[in-house]
Amino acid sequence: MIPTITAFRDSPDKGRGLARDMRIRWALEEVGQPYAVRLVTFAEMRQPGHLALHPFGQIPTYEEGELTLFETGAITLHIAQRHPGLLPEEAVARARAIAWIFAALNTIEPPIVELEQAGYVEQDRPWHGEHVRIMEDRIRHRLDQLAARLGDADWLDGAFSAGDLTLVMVLRRLEGTGILEHYPTLTAYVARGEARPAYRRAFAAQFAVFEQSR
Amino acid sequence: MIPTITAFRDSPDKGRGLARDMRIRWALEEVGQPYAVRLVTFAEMRQPGHLALHPFGQIPTYEEGELTLFETGAITLHIAQRHPGLLPEEAVARARAIAWIFAALNTIEPPIVELEQAGYVEQDRPWHGEHVRIMEDRIRHRLDQLAARLGDADWLDGAFSAGDLTLVMVLRRLEGTGILEHYPTLTAYVARGEARPAYRRAFAAQFAVFEQSR
Repeated sequence: MIPTITAFRDSPDKGRGLARDMRIRWALEEVGQPYAVRLVTFAEMRQPGHLALHPFGQIPTYEEGELTLFETGAITLHIAQRHPGLLPEEAVARARAIAWIFAALNTIEPPIVELEQAGYVEQDRPWHGEHVRIMEDRIRHRLDQLAARLGDADWLDGAFSAGDLTLVMVLRRLEGTGILEHYPTLTAYVARGEARPAYRRAFAAQFAVFEQSR
Repeated sequence: MIPTITAFRDSPDKGRGLARDMRIRWALEEVGQPYAVRLVTFAEMRQPGHLALHPFGQIPTYEEGELTLFETGAITLHIAQRHPGLLPEEAVARARAIAWIFAALNTIEPPIVELEQAGYVEQDRPWHGEHVRIMEDRIRHRLDQLAARLGDADWLDGAFSAGDLTLVMVLRRLEGTGILEHYPTLTAYVARGEARPAYRRAFAAQFAVFEQSR
């Protein structure tokens, strides 16, 4: 059965592959699972039909027979558990790879989202610049620790995993802030993710949506 | 094999059970798994020994034979997958319960942590009050959606699950802000979690650490 995901009909990222459907497209491409996409407008995301799939009115959602899922972490984990290729088979290594999905989403991503949100809701306040410096310090603290852990390794914990996939996408959210550029090993890590054939296929698929919407 | 978790030797929450070891203690109590606790100071959390267990220098960590884990979401999921009692057996229901762990940690918790952190790092700034109002609006937006989804149900999606456990603990972080009190169904939901015998045993265990430290 081919799963269906939702994505923005008009993504605010203009085809840069920063919306969260990119994470799911990439995971599905890594495991070789074809999928269908239903595009939704912002108005549709607030309707009861979409809220039944996603209580917080966001994308992506994931539908596969009787299963409907939301939260990119949960969808990524589901795909990784159903198909070989995104998690080690051995139990200890597998649990550790899953821990990196959570670390990417609960430790690294929140201060990055905070900085992004502040750009939308408080950019006109006189104190915005001062607040940005505080938020950037929090992000740098996490990146310092992350770079220390990654060291010179290619991936976080052995072979490429769903944890790396999630973290690469989280770090990409820093594009345009100038923060990641101070971490050459992390920049190279993101580039390794972006160079994967599955990533490139996923990127092209979401970019095609943008091209068609122009 | 009895797992070992780490917890604060001197928890900043003064025994209120808000530190993240409480989530793991509760999960272990729900499944009836005895555990050992190693208390760590803030200085020890910055040492290489602890950073090898937890790259971001936090608690809790989880050690069980060859497996070492960090991130409460990952540890909770690991416990829930190894023992009956915290996840439905049926695959669709199981995936949905896991999605609520991610929703609690990646959608509900981040704006709450943001508000908490701001209390530490910017309380002396003249714009702190204005910023607090923006952050509280973000939290209320999520709680509105969460309350709409929960409705009059006891738990998020059928029987009590690891998703409920995680979300109850995340909502408890709002204590003292006066925000949750405007959501009677969510307040009752948290109270149902706190009334569970396993919760009470976990709470007593972390409170005993506080009592011994005085």
